[in-house]
Amino acid sequence: MKNVVTAFVVSQGEELLTGLTVDTNANYLCDRLSRLGLRVMGASTAGDRLEAIAQALAHAASHADVVICTGGLGPTEDDLTAQSVVRAFGGELVLNEVALRQVVARYARIQAPMSPTNRKQALLPLGCEVIENPLGTAPGFAVDVAGTRLFFLPGVPREMKRMVDETVADDIAARYALHPPLRHTFRVMGRGESQLQEQLGSVGERFPGITLGFRTRMPENHVKLEAAPDTASWEQGKAWVRAQLGDDCFTEAPGEELAAVLGRMLVSRGEKLALAESCTGGWIAHLVVSEAGSSRWFERGWVTYSNEAKAQEVQVPTALLDEHGAVSEEVARAMAQGCAREAGVAWGVGVTGIAGPGGGSPEKPVGTVWIAVRGPSGTHARRLGLGRDRTSNRRFSAWIALEMLRRQVLRAGGFGEADQEIP
Amino acid sequence: MKNVVTAFVVSQGEELLTGLTVDTNANYLCDRLSRLGLRVMGASTAGDRLEAIAQALAHAASHADVVICTGGLGPTEDDLTAQSVVRAFGGELVLNEVALRQVVARYARIQAPMSPTNRKQALLPLGCEVIENPLGTAPGFAVDVAGTRLFFLPGVPREMKRMVDETVADDIAARYALHPPLRHTFRVMGRGESQLQEQLGSVGERFPGITLGFRTRMPENHVKLEAAPDTASWEQGKAWVRAQLGDDCFTEAPGEELAAVLGRMLVSRGEKLALAESCTGGWIAHLVVSEAGSSRWFERGWVTYSNEAKAQEVQVPTALLDEHGAVSEEVARAMAQGCAREAGVAWGVGVTGIAGPGGGSPEKPVGTVWIAVRGPSGTHARRLGLGRDRTSNRRFSAWIALEMLRRQVLRAGGFGEADQEIP
Repeated sequence: MKNVVTAFVVSQGEELLTGLTVDTNANYLCDRLSRLGLRVMGASTAGDRLEAIAQALAHAASHADVVICTGGLGPTEDDLTAQSVVRAFGGELVLNEVALRQVVARYARIQAPMSPTNRKQALLPLGCEVIENPLGTAPGFAVDVAGTRLFFLPGVPREMKRMVDETVADDIAARYALHPPLRHTFRVMGRGESQLQEQLGSVGERFPGITLGFRTRMPENHVKLEAAPDTASWEQGKAWVRAQLGDDCFTEAPGEELAAVLGRMLVSRGEKLALAESCTGGWIAHLVVSEAGSSRWFERGWVTYSNEAKAQEVQVPTALLDEHGAVSEEVARAMAQGCAREAGVAWGVGVTGIAGPGGGSPEKPVGTVWIAVRGPSGTHARRLGLGRDRTSNRRFSAWIALEMLRRQVLRAGGFGEADQEIP
Repeated sequence: MKNVVTAFVVSQGEELLTGLTVDTNANYLCDRLSRLGLRVMGASTAGDRLEAIAQALAHAASHADVVICTGGLGPTEDDLTAQSVVRAFGGELVLNEVALRQVVARYARIQAPMSPTNRKQALLPLGCEVIENPLGTAPGFAVDVAGTRLFFLPGVPREMKRMVDETVADDIAARYALHPPLRHTFRVMGRGESQLQEQLGSVGERFPGITLGFRTRMPENHVKLEAAPDTASWEQGKAWVRAQLGDDCFTEAPGEELAAVLGRMLVSRGEKLALAESCTGGWIAHLVVSEAGSSRWFERGWVTYSNEAKAQEVQVPTALLDEHGAVSEEVARAMAQGCAREAGVAWGVGVTGIAGPGGGSPEKPVGTVWIAVRGPSGTHARRLGLGRDRTSNRRFSAWIALEMLRRQVLRAGGFGEADQEIP
C-alpha cells in the first residue's frame, strides 16, 4: 500500500466571502495538487479576521502534509496572513532581509515609488523560507510546522500560478515520493450525462481501479477516467470507452476545442469554410477564429441579421424570405449555399433562428432554430427546438452547427488521404 | 449596534477537491447571503468522506447562525450528506414520507423509472424539514442544531439556486431581522485599477462608512461601493465617485454590458451599426447580438478574414492592401467606411490586427491592432499595441472597439433629443 501524501487548500480574503470575487485559485490548486499525486483532503476560505485565518491554518495543518494558502500578503491592514501564522503556530514576525531585497528590487524594476507601508510585505515569520514572486511585489514564504509544510502565496492568480510552477511544485516533488494518478478525458457531443452514465457506468466493474466522472459544458459532455498509477487495465479501459463513444467523441487531446478538430480536418482536406449567421450573430465565427491558424481553413463570414442582409450578402431569394420567413429550412439552406458560393469555398454553414426573449409565434416559438450545412455531397438541414433563454439558445445553435459540420466532413471522408493518421 | 446574523457555506464533493469541477455554488451563496444582509464567516469544502463532512458541518455550525451545505444528496454511495449530519449532530436517519412522495412524483413527471436506490434520497435525519426540489430528484432539507439553522441543498447549481429563491431566502428572512448592505457598482473603461485606487482611494475618509472595492474584467474595471444600511453619506459618496469617473463610467445599471449601453444610445438616435471584423473574427458581432433587441440597432456584419473578403465584401481598395498591408490604419478606415456604406447605416467599425501567436514582424509585432470607427462626424482610428496572447488580444480589441464607438456616439451628442433622460 502506497503512502498517500495529503494536502489542504486555504483561501484568504473578505471579498471571497462577500461574493465580490470568485475564488479561482482553490480550483486551480486542487487540480494542480491532484495531478502532482497529492490527495486534497479539504479546502477552506477565511475572511479578513486574524482569528478566522489562524483557525483555518491550524485545522489545515492538522489534516494534511502540505498546505497552500493564497491571499493576504499585500501591504494593507487587511493583509493578515503573516500575523495569522504567528497566531496559529507561535513564533514572531521579523523584517526578512531576503524578502525586503526582493520587494525593493521589484519596485525598482517597475519604476514605481516604494512607500514605507510596502516594507510590511517583508515582515514575515521568523525562520520562514522566502519564495520569490517574479510578477508582483508580495513575496511568498514557506514554514514547517510539526511535519506539515505550509506555503503562503499571493492571491493574484497570475502571480500565484507562476510561483507554483517555478518553486512550489518542485519543492513538493523533491520532498515526497509522489504517484500521480492516470487521467484521461473524452469530449463528446450528442449524448447526455444520464445516457453516458448508463452506457459507461460499468467501466469500474469491467476494469477494476478505473473511476468514471462527468463534466457538462452544455451541449458538450466530458467523460473523465481516473486510476491509480500502474493500474493494469488502464489502456484496455480507455479502449473500451473509446469504442462505446465512437464518432460522438470529437477529441481526446487535452484542451482541444470542437473548432480545432474541424480545422485539422479541413486543413488536411485542403478545404475552407464560410459562415452565414443570423441568431448566432458571429458566435460561430468567433469560435473558429479563436483557433490559431484559422486563416488556413476559414475564408469569411457574414452576420446577416436583417432580411436585407440575407438577400444582398448571401443571395437568399427574397421570394423565399417572403414565403417561408427568415426562420425556415429554405432560408437556412439558401444561406449555407449562398455563403459558400460567394466565398468560393467547399463548405458553408447557415444558421437562422429565434433566440428570444421576443420574436416567437405559435408556429415558430422562441428557441426555433434552423441550421444548414453545405458540403461536397449536398446540403443537410436540421431544426432545433430549444428553450427560452437567449444565451443558451445561441450557444447551443453555435455548438450544434459546428458539430453538424464535423459530421458532414466525417461523412465526406474525414481527414484527407495524406493525414489519416493524425492522432 | 445592530445584531449581525452570520453564515457559513459548506460545499461537498470529491470532484471539487480533485479540481475536476469548479465550485460556483460557494461564490453564488456568499454573494446571495451577503446581499440578504448576513455576514459570511467562512466557507469550506469537504470530499466524499463521512468524517470530513461531519467535521466541516460541526465547525460551520459552531461559527454561524445559518449554514448552507450543497452537494451529496444523490442516490449513490458517494452521497453522504444525510449520514454526516447524524454523525456530526446525533439522531438517526429515517425514511421521510414527505421526501419520498416528492422523489416518486419527480420520477413520474420526467417519465423515468425509479430504481430502489433512489429511495435513498428520502432517507433523511429524523425531524428535519423537507425542502422541495422542483428541478431535480434530490429533495433538500433543513435542521436546527443549538440555535443554528442548517440547510442542505443539491450540488447542481440550477436546482440549488431555484431552491434558494423559492424557499431558503424567505425562510432566512422570516427568521432574522436582516439589514442588507448598500451596494453600488460603476463599470469603467479606460482606467486601470491602480489609477482608480489613487483617484478614489480617499472615498472612505471623505464619506465615513463607505468601503471601496475593485473587480477587474479586463479591459473593464468595476468600482464597487459598499456601506452599512442607513449610511448617511451614501448618496453623496456615490455622487462624488460618479463625478470623478465622468464619461469613463459607461453604466451603473446592474448587469448592463457595454454593448447594451451602445444599443440604448443608437436606438434613441435612430441609427444603426455595421461591423467589419478581421482579427476579432465575429466577437464584436457576438457581443452585440448577445443583447436582446439588437436587431433595432445592428444591421449586419462581416468577418473579412482574408484579403479577398476585405476587398470584395467591404470594398477595401486592393491598392491599399498591397501598399500598407491588411493590418494598417488605411485598411481599418476603409473597412469601417466600407461596411457602413454597404449596409447603408450611419455607424461602421473596422478592426484588423495580428492576434498571434504567428504572423508578427518587426514593424508589426503580434498584438498590433488597428481599429476605426466611422460616424456622422468622420472616421477615427487608433492603433493598439497589445501583448502576445491571442485570446487577450482579441478580447481587448473587441472591447476597445465598442468603447471607441461609445465615445464617438457621445461626441455626436450621445442620446437623441427625446431621450436625454434615460437613466
